[in-house]
Amino acid sequence: MADILHRIGVKTRSPEKVYDALTTVEGLAGWWTDDTKGSGDVGGVLEFRFPPGGFDMEVVELRPSERVAWRVADGPEEWIGTTIDWDLRQDGDYTIVLFKHQGWKEPVEFMHHCSTKWATFLMSLKSLVEIGEGAPAPGTCRSATGTEPSQAGRPAAGGGQSVIHSLVTVTSSSSDGIGSTPMRSGTRRRAPGRTRPRR
Amino acid sequence: MADILHRIGVKTRSPEKVYDALTTVEGLAGWWTDDTKGSGDVGGVLEFRFPPGGFDMEVVELRPSERVAWRVADGPEEWIGTTIDWDLRQDGDYTIVLFKHQGWKEPVEFMHHCSTKWATFLMSLKSLVEIGEGAPAPGTCRSATGTEPSQAGRPAAGGGQSVIHSLVTVTSSSSDGIGSTPMRSGTRRRAPGRTRPRR
Repeated sequence: MADILHRIGVKTRSPEKVYDALTTVEGLAGWWTDDTKGSGDVGGVLEFRFPPGGFDMEVVELRPSERVAWRVADGPEEWIGTTIDWDLRQDGDYTIVLFKHQGWKEPVEFMHHCSTKWATFLMSLKSLVEIGEGAPAPGTCRSATGTEPSQAGRPAAGGGQSVIHSLVTVTSSSSDGIGSTPMRSGTRRRAPGRTRPRR
Repeated sequence: MADILHRIGVKTRSPEKVYDALTTVEGLAGWWTDDTKGSGDVGGVLEFRFPPGGFDMEVVELRPSERVAWRVADGPEEWIGTTIDWDLRQDGDYTIVLFKHQGWKEPVEFMHHCSTKWATFLMSLKSLVEIGEGAPAPGTCRSATGTEPSQAGRPAAGGGQSVIHSLVTVTSSSSDGIGSTPMRSGTRRRAPGRTRPRR
């Protein structure tokens, strides 16, 4: 098993804004992906979509201003059954966010990729709370990293591939060098966003 | 043991520019810290300084355009003896960089923090090669993340603390919530940058 670990300090007087950004559809849409739907309540499922693929996250635990825990219910094969925990604490003028995406079976290249991209989305979350503007997908290529201009906005070819595109801010074309593992896994699985009615 | 894993795809026709940015003082100074000295040859020591602390990296392996491996010879206690590997491969128009900072004894909060910051410096490396401009420390607060404006440029109080400041783009003040572990570890160790003559 392997884990992705991150930490940010968000300059804000209390954890409430960060907690809201992790538990409300509006908040989540402000830093991860514009296309966020579903329920942020315990037992609910949050649907994060990146045209045309995405992730379904079951909300398994909520402790206001302290902790949010998700279980990946659907998405790329490597993600299924992994867990994503958000632990918050206030330290002076900062809300400290400890992030854990745990339970990866193997430290595949896709995991390296997701680790880097989680960091950019965490910076987007930080920016959303601190200055009122995040950098959610699909605009992330330009606004969050300011890189891969030639990649931004290029259409993705498939669900799993587009998940990778959206999560890692590269396209699904093989030329981006994502590698075959996530490609295969992504295309092996259905893309939730394309096979489920929206709530 | 725990590892920090990242991956970026750098849009460039061959791995040479990325390799140079990982093996020459000029290149390294362009994306990680302005104050980089030492030798990038195998057996040499690269000295990365963030006023007034830093890291000493022994270069343990070089395979042109393919691999760079460092061993942390000095720096924060948690870093000593850990290894940092850079594996490069060309995939179409991209040089794929697989990054591993391995051998952390425990997944401490400081490790979460370093994981996030490594991602921002990897984006700085990507930017350096793709557009000719990176975001090395000490300017990272503003240019790489665009966040923590009130933190940028504030003086750090001590070697280990400043290492954290520079690596993770927050100040050494306890109010940033970095937590006591890296603070104590940082101050238990000498700060290489303050106790050694510059080469």
